Amino acid sequence: MISVSDAISLIRRNVEPIGSESILLSQGVGRVLAEDIIADMDLPPFDRSQMDGFAVRAADVAKAPVDLEIVGESAAGRGWHHELKPNEAVRIMTGAPVPIGADAVQKVELTSEHSFGSDAAQTTDGSISILEPIAPGRNIVRQGAEIKKGELIFSTGERINERMIASLAAFGYAGVLAAKRPRVAVFTTGSEVVEINEMPGRDQIRNSNSAMLQALVETVAGQVHLLPTAPDDLDGIKEVIKAAAASADLVVITGGVSVGKYDLTKRALIELGAEVFFERVRLKPGKPAVFARLDKTLMFGLPGNPVSAAVTFYMFVRKALLLMQSASMTDLPRATAIAADILKAAPQRDTYLPVKLEFGSDGRVMATAVKWIGSSDFIGYGKSDALAFVPGGETIGAGGQTEVLLL
Amino acid sequence: MISVSDAISLIRRNVEPIGSESILLSQGVGRVLAEDIIADMDLPPFDRSQMDGFAVRAADVAKAPVDLEIVGESAAGRGWHHELKPNEAVRIMTGAPVPIGADAVQKVELTSEHSFGSDAAQTTDGSISILEPIAPGRNIVRQGAEIKKGELIFSTGERINERMIASLAAFGYAGVLAAKRPRVAVFTTGSEVVEINEMPGRDQIRNSNSAMLQALVETVAGQVHLLPTAPDDLDGIKEVIKAAAASADLVVITGGVSVGKYDLTKRALIELGAEVFFERVRLKPGKPAVFARLDKTLMFGLPGNPVSAAVTFYMFVRKALLLMQSASMTDLPRATAIAADILKAAPQRDTYLPVKLEFGSDGRVMATAVKWIGSSDFIGYGKSDALAFVPGGETIGAGGQTEVLLL
Repeated sequence: MISVSDAISLIRRNVEPIGSESILLSQGVGRVLAEDIIADMDLPPFDRSQMDGFAVRAADVAKAPVDLEIVGESAAGRGWHHELKPNEAVRIMTGAPVPIGADAVQKVELTSEHSFGSDAAQTTDGSISILEPIAPGRNIVRQGAEIKKGELIFSTGERINERMIASLAAFGYAGVLAAKRPRVAVFTTGSEVVEINEMPGRDQIRNSNSAMLQALVETVAGQVHLLPTAPDDLDGIKEVIKAAAASADLVVITGGVSVGKYDLTKRALIELGAEVFFERVRLKPGKPAVFARLDKTLMFGLPGNPVSAAVTFYMFVRKALLLMQSASMTDLPRATAIAADILKAAPQRDTYLPVKLEFGSDGRVMATAVKWIGSSDFIGYGKSDALAFVPGGETIGAGGQTEVLLL
Repeated sequence: MISVSDAISLIRRNVEPIGSESILLSQGVGRVLAEDIIADMDLPPFDRSQMDGFAVRAADVAKAPVDLEIVGESAAGRGWHHELKPNEAVRIMTGAPVPIGADAVQKVELTSEHSFGSDAAQTTDGSISILEPIAPGRNIVRQGAEIKKGELIFSTGERINERMIASLAAFGYAGVLAAKRPRVAVFTTGSEVVEINEMPGRDQIRNSNSAMLQALVETVAGQVHLLPTAPDDLDGIKEVIKAAAASADLVVITGGVSVGKYDLTKRALIELGAEVFFERVRLKPGKPAVFARLDKTLMFGLPGNPVSAAVTFYMFVRKALLLMQSASMTDLPRATAIAADILKAAPQRDTYLPVKLEFGSDGRVMATAVKWIGSSDFIGYGKSDALAFVPGGETIGAGGQTEVLLL
């Protein structure tokens, strides 16, 4: 039995990146960047107006109200590319380039127009009263103020989220180099397991692990291939493992890893010649977790109980999948929370308890245990949004601090 | 100009649910439940062993060590369905049914086996030494302790996440009734806008809004149809709006909603006969946000600046899309954080500033402003993970409390 941190070190040492591919930006959310994202131009690309109004020379309007001659118009996409002379103004729209010579934009609400034409809004001649003075630089974002050409925006290894898409698009990343999606074969073992659409007979349970693991693997961009459930038969399990290994980068098997006599996964792996890196971890839930390699394929054997399978997924498989994608962050995000209830660890096993986080009005995060019968209670886990960490043998009292992993 | 809360009330009043459909569980993550999820059986379905070991009568082992006769075996999927008599034990596996008569399971590590056969692990006869006493009920999860048949697990309106999948699978939801995905047409207006794969000329910018909005709409299960960018031409914009409205439940248009003379979206909507519910909101960024209805289709006109478009998406469009799906939670999750820097609102406009959250070791959440040139700075927004709320006209000092919306 090894510690969680030793188990993680073994994963770090034995997982290899699986390479990259070019993908469409529209497919990018959730994928890991395999290239640095660089600005290919200044942003803004020109001195840009933040307002609808008039571009002016601040010195001309220092004693406003003052009348200026309207000499042109600068709209987004149709700049006025001349030099503004003293006592001139250019009508300007939000987002449009500020003409050379102008050093401020007075917003339209602080101007009053006197036009020769009948439809004031359609003319670019006439004069404009600037009603208030304005300081140089006001309502202008200078060229390159947001970013300069050649600067780094996002780095290799970052996972693309929906907030990053505007930046990627603005700098021309219609396609982007991303880590390949790991191919993940998933199957459940156990003669007692029936499929979701079947009614379990006496002693039977439905296969909730395969669907759950598919959803979990997809949260880190894995492509899942679900294999049929394997009964408790050593040769049968060996066949499924061989087939899974041949077409996947990583195989996740649930069930069959405990010490009971029908727990056959580990034996099957050993008989197939897999190198077993660990098989028991000081972790609750999830002690009987197996990590091995068969030829080039990584193999995880997770406990059959869905919550144990989920926790070992979060701790080990998720990390392996992100390391395969060369992600820079491979841990779940962590926070410190205040325990609302007593949280108790197993002796000598680091314990992760499903909790629901609440944000107090004092800026603190509270972790409330969900209704929790024990490690088998996946309904409680289904209502949680974090795992509270309690070091092996310890108890955290209500009001004490606990580290939580955000799910 | 109306308040944000009035704008939200108008959205609540004018958005209709779009109905439900049956989907595969494997497509369920992110979708809104359109049915209550009910347990169709007790869980556990029988008194279940939490350990590998021996099912015993606690009274028989009160003076352990004591020898008991092994009379059978209960494995997951193959229970031993007889009654355990005094001084008998049944070999039992984790997850297996506990026989009638037994009231505790002693774990295998606290037993010692004396077998008549040569391979101890393969026999079910012989005797077993129970080395320590065990209290009644230990290592057994009682039938129905996690949930009883007929109990509610998840409610209509909840959004399915990956942690809920195990429960859905366990109770037979191979398919599930979910709200339909709203069909969302997205397009950008502006003669200055070129596509992502083009190099912008003088005065031009790439279309970052369409890709961004596609990603944002997909976070709430919308199906996006991207339409080509419409130049600043009233008739052209009207044509695109008509086409979009005909095939979508909701249309999102960016650009063309300010007071500049080429801001044509609002005019196009009015000329097409749309009912305009609001057109300016006391919100920064995002003041010129339009909400309207054209026939049965909801129309949102968002500012052209990507950050303003994102903020108005989060405040208004996201809510409308979730209301269409009858989701019970239509707001972004909120938390209270401690401001690491001064956060300043615009006069009279509720202000949302992109921040990065950090979890302090004291259980507090800190909100640090990202590098932020102004409302146009979508690179800063791309590095944020929350929006800090500052009421119009107010300033929150460093160390003060601020409400944040988690993105």
